[in-house]
Amino acid sequence: MGIPDENIHPTATGNAAKTVAEHQAKQDLVFYSGWFCPFNQRVWISLEEKGIPYQYKEVNPYKKEKHFLDINPKGLVPAIEYQGKALYESLILCEFLEDAYPDYKPHLLPTDPFERAHARLWIDHTTKAIIPAWHRLLQGQTKEQQDAARQELYAAQGKLAQEVKGPYFAGEEFGLVDVANAPWVAREYILAEQRGYDSAQVGNGWSEYVERLATRESVGKTTSEEDKLQVIYDRYLRDEAQSEAAKAIRAGRVIP
Amino acid sequence: MGIPDENIHPTATGNAAKTVAEHQAKQDLVFYSGWFCPFNQRVWISLEEKGIPYQYKEVNPYKKEKHFLDINPKGLVPAIEYQGKALYESLILCEFLEDAYPDYKPHLLPTDPFERAHARLWIDHTTKAIIPAWHRLLQGQTKEQQDAARQELYAAQGKLAQEVKGPYFAGEEFGLVDVANAPWVAREYILAEQRGYDSAQVGNGWSEYVERLATRESVGKTTSEEDKLQVIYDRYLRDEAQSEAAKAIRAGRVIP
Repeated sequence: MGIPDENIHPTATGNAAKTVAEHQAKQDLVFYSGWFCPFNQRVWISLEEKGIPYQYKEVNPYKKEKHFLDINPKGLVPAIEYQGKALYESLILCEFLEDAYPDYKPHLLPTDPFERAHARLWIDHTTKAIIPAWHRLLQGQTKEQQDAARQELYAAQGKLAQEVKGPYFAGEEFGLVDVANAPWVAREYILAEQRGYDSAQVGNGWSEYVERLATRESVGKTTSEEDKLQVIYDRYLRDEAQSEAAKAIRAGRVIP
Repeated sequence: MGIPDENIHPTATGNAAKTVAEHQAKQDLVFYSGWFCPFNQRVWISLEEKGIPYQYKEVNPYKKEKHFLDINPKGLVPAIEYQGKALYESLILCEFLEDAYPDYKPHLLPTDPFERAHARLWIDHTTKAIIPAWHRLLQGQTKEQQDAARQELYAAQGKLAQEVKGPYFAGEEFGLVDVANAPWVAREYILAEQRGYDSAQVGNGWSEYVERLATRESVGKTTSEEDKLQVIYDRYLRDEAQSEAAKAIRAGRVIP
């Protein structure tokens, strides 16, 4: 049974609440956000990094309210409304921000075509290898499941760590590979406390990279209070969460 | 046991063999290709559509020869070598061709940022919903598995079909959503003959769209003889194939 997901805390708290308060004015770009969601945080970090004007609207994606389903038929956050038209999917939204706001910096993708493709390869690795292993470790209920997922996560993160030029993935500039990983990195304390995860085991400078991402200003500004997040993650830790990501991991399917 | 995958026919045949013969001269861009692979065919179609000069090199990815692993540590086709540096992953390669050869047409992605993101959303739908359902139907061994996968495939293709402006996804221009789907569409006769698949069941004009993609010149020029392909697909139909995609579907994992 478990507590239905729609009973999550309704709004961002802590630093994130301040950021929300600063983005209430009407803008061309409306950001439909779920304060707790790591996929969602990718878009929020990108908006903050680039200083794009946006209006923040909190949505509980589990409630599937009609006005939101009209915007995004998948009913998932993050979503944006831009000049009356809707888009969704976190990484597609980040690329959209690059394309639609070419004068806002930092550029999240390199301009050189080869370097751009190289960054996309490691974003793809994040999507296909790191995030699924992360969620399998979080949701794993037996020691065997957790041990396997933890090793898988160390290996996947270790491969990415080898490619980090430093201080950020592509060098001096904070970019989309960093954005893609930062929300999970900022939640690694949950795996450390509950699942025996130790970032020092990853190697290749991962711990130092993690520290740089987790303390980035845009990450802090989009992070709510730990106790509010804990309520949600407690459900993942018992493998009772009903988010699309949680259900996909349980069913051995692609995270939609 | 089954026949090891490395015993597949070593070269492209039929129309595709002619295309290979025309692309043997040394070029800045080397295309490491497996003639039989649908992911691979996406890149091949894009190269042919845009008329980019390329040198074709056939690779058997199951043999993992050292010179190829040096280029692409994942050992998968498709891969390219561009000015001495390697890239892989079919859709990332297609986007790379757009970025690196901006003057070659057709443009596979719209220039308008919103339309670009919209196309990427439906490429993402292809990756996450259509292709996995396609492979689950192909590899399903029981009637129940096949029935479930077939319905899932009809639903996923039907959603995409609704978004097709016609004649191609984005309108008059053949583009990346079409490229992403064309290789599987060109292989649907296998599902029709062996798995009770009927493209007319998809609805929303899917059959007509399929016909347009399958008869596109670039698709024909990159397609080998059916009997050579059949040997490979027979192994998928028995769920004995050892490709990364086949193993992922079997394990309920993301296709790498």
